[in-house]
Parts: sequence; structure tokens; C-alpha cells
Amino acid sequence: MELLEQIGQGAKEAESLLRILSEEKKNMVLNRAADALVKHTDRILAANEKDMARGKEKGMKAGLLDRLLLTPERIEGMAEGLRQIADLPDPIGQVIKEHTPPSGLLIRQVRVPLGVIGIIYEARPNVTADAFGLCFKTGNAVVLRGGSDALYSNRAIVEVLRETLAACECPVTAVSLLSDTSRETAAAFMKLNRYIDVLIPRGSAGLIATVVQNSTIPVIETGSGNCHIYVDEAADLNMAAEIVFNAKTQRIGVCNACESLVVHEKVKDAFLPVLAKRLSEKQVELRGDERARASCPMKEACEADWGTEYLGYILSVKVVDSVSEAVSHINRYNTGHSEAIITEDKAHAEQFLREVDAAAVYVNASTRFTDGFEFGFGAEIGISTQKLHARGPMGLEALTSYKYEIYGTGQVRG
Amino acid sequence: MELLEQIGQGAKEAESLLRILSEEKKNMVLNRAADALVKHTDRILAANEKDMARGKEKGMKAGLLDRLLLTPERIEGMAEGLRQIADLPDPIGQVIKEHTPPSGLLIRQVRVPLGVIGIIYEARPNVTADAFGLCFKTGNAVVLRGGSDALYSNRAIVEVLRETLAACECPVTAVSLLSDTSRETAAAFMKLNRYIDVLIPRGSAGLIATVVQNSTIPVIETGSGNCHIYVDEAADLNMAAEIVFNAKTQRIGVCNACESLVVHEKVKDAFLPVLAKRLSEKQVELRGDERARASCPMKEACEADWGTEYLGYILSVKVVDSVSEAVSHINRYNTGHSEAIITEDKAHAEQFLREVDAAAVYVNASTRFTDGFEFGFGAEIGISTQKLHARGPMGLEALTSYKYEIYGTGQVRG
Repeated sequence: MELLEQIGQGAKEAESLLRILSEEKKNMVLNRAADALVKHTDRILAANEKDMARGKEKGMKAGLLDRLLLTPERIEGMAEGLRQIADLPDPIGQVIKEHTPPSGLLIRQVRVPLGVIGIIYEARPNVTADAFGLCFKTGNAVVLRGGSDALYSNRAIVEVLRETLAACECPVTAVSLLSDTSRETAAAFMKLNRYIDVLIPRGSAGLIATVVQNSTIPVIETGSGNCHIYVDEAADLNMAAEIVFNAKTQRIGVCNACESLVVHEKVKDAFLPVLAKRLSEKQVELRGDERARASCPMKEACEADWGTEYLGYILSVKVVDSVSEAVSHINRYNTGHSEAIITEDKAHAEQFLREVDAAAVYVNASTRFTDGFEFGFGAEIGISTQKLHARGPMGLEALTSYKYEIYGTGQVRG
Repeated sequence: MELLEQIGQGAKEAESLLRILSEEKKNMVLNRAADALVKHTDRILAANEKDMARGKEKGMKAGLLDRLLLTPERIEGMAEGLRQIADLPDPIGQVIKEHTPPSGLLIRQVRVPLGVIGIIYEARPNVTADAFGLCFKTGNAVVLRGGSDALYSNRAIVEVLRETLAACECPVTAVSLLSDTSRETAAAFMKLNRYIDVLIPRGSAGLIATVVQNSTIPVIETGSGNCHIYVDEAADLNMAAEIVFNAKTQRIGVCNACESLVVHEKVKDAFLPVLAKRLSEKQVELRGDERARASCPMKEACEADWGTEYLGYILSVKVVDSVSEAVSHINRYNTGHSEAIITEDKAHAEQFLREVDAAAVYVNASTRFTDGFEFGFGAEIGISTQKLHARGPMGLEALTSYKYEIYGTGQVRG
């Protein structure tokens, strides 16, 4: 626990120096950190081998082992990520608004760093470099709590980043890693309000729920996506089939994949058999309500299916009689991530856009577009499913706050 | 606890209807609610008399009794507050940004309500109408948990508001009041994540700390202000004396009042005696460090003084040798509210503006200007001292989130 105190203090000290770093300096450090990661590939791979050996010994599943594995190409990818962040415009110092009220004060709203950001994540070591890059570019110190499975890899990456910071005369405590990955320390970390301004959990729904329940630091919830596509009575059914196929199968296991289909009664007979055929190319299992099953043979959906993020080759199917019913169903079961309507009817599209409560609401496009790169932010720290501070894909701006700089000429309040 | 569940569900149901109310309708309801409060003055005053009688019986202090007291004028003030909110522009539906990335999607960021807002506050019954007005204007449902001392008054006000909502065919659960003001229910209320999107505590530092420690709902911290004024070596000393006098004495007991003076070594001898004389008009007690006491007779400040928000006629005085030392002192002891520098030196002003970490940083003006009306927002739900979501005075925009509305023509992800 003393260690936590020390890490918190170190981050806080770095914060005041990072806040005033120039854009040039930050970009220089990011590019040099990228070079250093590549230069120290062997060292990072050696550390990763230890993690991999331990993971195999523990009987970790193939999918998790693959997420843990580093290769020279993956390290080059991490470096390229840092270089891309260096190329993005720096939001810090930007004047968001300015105005002069009757008092004659000039009130300027200026973008500033959040301060110290805590990130809690699971096995993927590439998050380590990525989170550092995004936080550093926005003048924030970052405290990382990665999973115990990736501890050696994360340590090696943070060492290389810190060596670069030291060589560039920047505070090394701009990035810290909790080496103690116990639950007790994680619990204490989540209560470190006096040092940490915001906590961002990245990982499974379970991890995120634990952080929300236990943190006294403000949390940005990211993650789970129970995304729906509603095929309206006025849909172009060919377009609908292609979009559902893409959103369900283009990449399985991602939060913006489609998990549930909602179909209008009037088109279900024409649409469902065609869609089922298309999805059978990827062996997608359909689970439908009674009306869906009457149109096309499929398994029966139970209540739990409507609320499940499968992250796999399964799609639930619900039949409705109107846009309003589709909206009610979606607002009841969704996780506030991404939802789509397929329709040629403008009024239906507008109603859906207005009434569905989610970070991203699409007309005639795949839900798979919800990410920071596709949204043109150039990078992403996660996808927020809450409404406070940031919603949807979070780019650099989501890691900033603002302050008011106010210029007077002796004004006092009457 | 069952009651909480019912209140949460009611608010959630209202949310989906409020989200799509037109600006005209919302303004009509606000103006009619204002009329209804005035019309039912006698009923509200009768309820308030019960609270006042109980307060006197309990031996409540005069200051608290005054905050609890309603009069026809104060009810007219509440009504006028609602009318002013009706006159403000509605931020909901505003397009914040829009762009088209290479995919050809039109991505539009649109302002939407937060959803359901919880407000926890203490004895002042005027907050009840005010919080309803701000939340309703921004399409949010609100659940109020006022202090037990004002329960009869708050109930009467909420009854009048709900009668207006019903008469206007709006969901009455747009505003709810927790009648059970026990600690247990307050604790359960703070964990109502599934119904409440954000919790805003308004009141003492103790109340706010309790909410931050116990809430699993995202909290916007408002409140305490340990505000500093730094009188630089290049200050206009007459201006400095007037500004400090104003910030300290114009209104005692408010969060943007000045609590601590920081003075440059080079001007302390010329400034402190003059200031002490000016502040003696209001019997302000000075508490200084050694160097301050050498310039001007005053009490000795102890370590605790630097971190104390007096909310009274006391001012601590610290002498420093540079802008940097002033900044370090302020960043160590402030609460992130409002800080000022008095100087004619532009470089010193810029350094102070950039390096001081607070919601509002002033050059040559009184810290008393930090509020929603002075900032031109027309209304205020509180002053945020955190960096997430909203910082500084919070007007209507602070009660909103955004969603992305995305228009495609069949795009799928490659």
C-alpha cells in the first residue's frame, strides 16, 4: 500500500510538468519511444516469453495466449501506434469558446489535461504502450494496472518508455505500472482519489462492473455492446442482408458486432430465409421468437437471449409491428453502444435516430463503424457506454478537461 | 427500498418521453409551473411553517432557519427562476459537430439529455424548484433527495410541480422526491445505477465527501472553494486591495470567496499594512506566516490554515519569492475552484494562468465572478470542482450528453 502512495505521488508530481510540455516536445518523446520499442524488441520478447511460458503452464486458452503473445511485427505495430499519435493535432491549449459578459471580463474556455489517468486492463500488453501514448500526448500522467498474466511484458515495455522519458528529460513518473497485481492492491488503487482524476477500465464486462462498484475515483465505463439492427418494413432487403452479415460476422468478439436482429412483421417472410442462407456461410446460429420461427426454421430464443452479448456466431431475432416497438425493445435490452435501422423511409429513420438511447445510432450502415479510427479521431482509448464526460469512441479529446482563463482590468463584484 | 425501486422506474419511464419533448412544450410547462407556485403560495407557506416549527423545536441555528424560511417574495423568486430558465435557449438537439470520414458516412454529434439526474441537497427548499427547472429544460428526469429539515416544504413544492406536469400531459415522474430521508435510504439511493445516470450533491463538504465515497453512480463534485489571490511583485497595489476586499468580504460563506492571500516578498511591506486597514472595516482577522507578520501585525497561521475554507471573516497570508512559488503553494492547498493573480506583468499573468490547476483562473479580477450567471449561462446547477464532464459553473449544457447520429447508404466495414 505504501507503494501505491508512492506511485500516486509520483504521478501527481509529473502532472504539473506534463501540463505545460510543448506539442513539439511531446511529439519528439513519442517518436523516440516508438524507436526505442523497436530497438529493444529482443528484450521485450524475452519478457513476453516468460509470460507465455507461465500462461501455458497455467493452461490458458489459445485465444488468450494469442492476445498475450508479442512478435516483432506486433512490437512494430505498437511503435507505429505511438508515431500515429505523435502525428495527431494536440488538443491541449485549444480555446474552445471565449466571450465577454456585461462585467467586461474576457472569459476564455481552454482545453487542459485531465491530470492523472488510471487504466485497469487485462491481458493485452499492446494496451500498455497505447495508453501511455494517448495520455502523454494529452499531457496526462498515467498509472497502469495490467493483468498479472502480462506482468513481465508490461514491465519491459514501461521500462523502455521510462528510459526514453529520462533521456528526453521528462519525468519518468509520467507512466507507472502497478507491479503488485493482487486484488487487495487493485481495490486500494480504485480509492486513490487524491492522486487519480479518472479511472478507465478496459476489458471484460466483469472487470468493468467491479471497477464501477468499487471505485471512488470517477470512472469512464467502456465496453460491452449488445448492438441491434432493426430491419424496417421500408428496408432495402438486399442492403439489410449485407449489413447484418457484415455487422455479425466481419469480426466476432468485438463490442460493435451485431448481437440481435429486430425485423418488421411485414418483411420477415421475405427477409429471414434470405438472411439465414447468407449467415449460414459462416455457420451463424439464429435464435428467434415465435413469429421469427414461423418465417424461417431456427432455435427458440429465451428471455436471456435478448440481453446477451454473444461475442460469437449467434444472432437473436425479434419480430415487431412498428418502429416504436423496435425502439422500446432496443432501449430495454441494449447497453448504450451502437444500434442501426435499415430503411428507405426518412420519417422512420428520424424517429429511430431520435428515440433510440445509445452512443451511436446508424441509418443504413453497419454497427461495426463505431470506433475512434472510423470516426476520424485517429486513435481510441476505448468506447464509452456512459453518458457523462464522453460517449462513444473516445479519442484524444476525451482525455482532456478545460479551465476558464479570465482576463480582468480590476473588476470587483457589486 | 421498494419505494426507491418504484421511484427509479418512474423516472426511467419519464426519461424516454422527456427526451423528445419540444422546446415550446418544455417552456410552456416551466412558465405554468412558475404561475402555479405563486398561485399556491399559501399552501407552500403552510408546509414551510411546519418545517420551521420543527426546526425551532430542534434548536436549529438562526442561519439555517433563515435558509429554510420561505416567504411570498422567496416563492416569487423561485417562480421567476423557472421563467428565466424557460427563456434560455434549449441545448437539446443542437448539432455539436458533423463530418464525413473516408467511409462516406455522415457522422453528426447531437446534444441529448443525460437521462435521469439525482440531486442530493440540504436544507434550502428553493433548490427543489430550481433543480426541477434546469433538469426539465434539458429533457432530464430528476430524483430529489432534500434534507429532512425541509421535507414538508419540498413535498408541497413537488406536489405543485407534479400537478402542473399532469395538467400539461407530461409524465409526473419527471420530478420525484424521496420522502424517506433516512441515511439507509440515502445510501441505497447512491447505488441506483440502473436508473440514475448522474448524481449531483449540493451542500456541505461533508455531504459531498459522503456521496463521493459511497455512490456507484457517476458523481459531479461541486462545492468547496479554498480560493487564493496572489498579489504579484508587479501588481497595481490599489487594485489588489480593492479586489481582495471584494473577494473576501462582499459575501461571506460562498464558495468563490477568497480564503487565502499570497503576496510577493517585494511588495509585502507596501501592501499588507494598507490591506489590513481596508479589511479592518469589516473586522477581518489576518493569519500570516513569519514574513507576513514581520510586515504587519497579525495572528500566526498554522499549517491547517493553508487548507481551510473559512467561510467567515478570516484570511490567511503567505509570502512567496516568485510566481512559481505562488503556483506551487496554490496547487498544493487549493480545491480546484477559483484563483487570481494581480499583476501588470503579462508574462507573470500567462505563467499563472497556465500553471495553476483550477476551474477558473483570473488575472486582475475578483474570484467572486465564478458563477453561472456571471459567466453568462443564465442559470447554474452548481460549480464543479472536478475535471470530468463539467468544470466550473455548470449551466444547462452540463446537464446534457451527446449521441452520434450516423447516416449511411449501405456501408459495411471491410
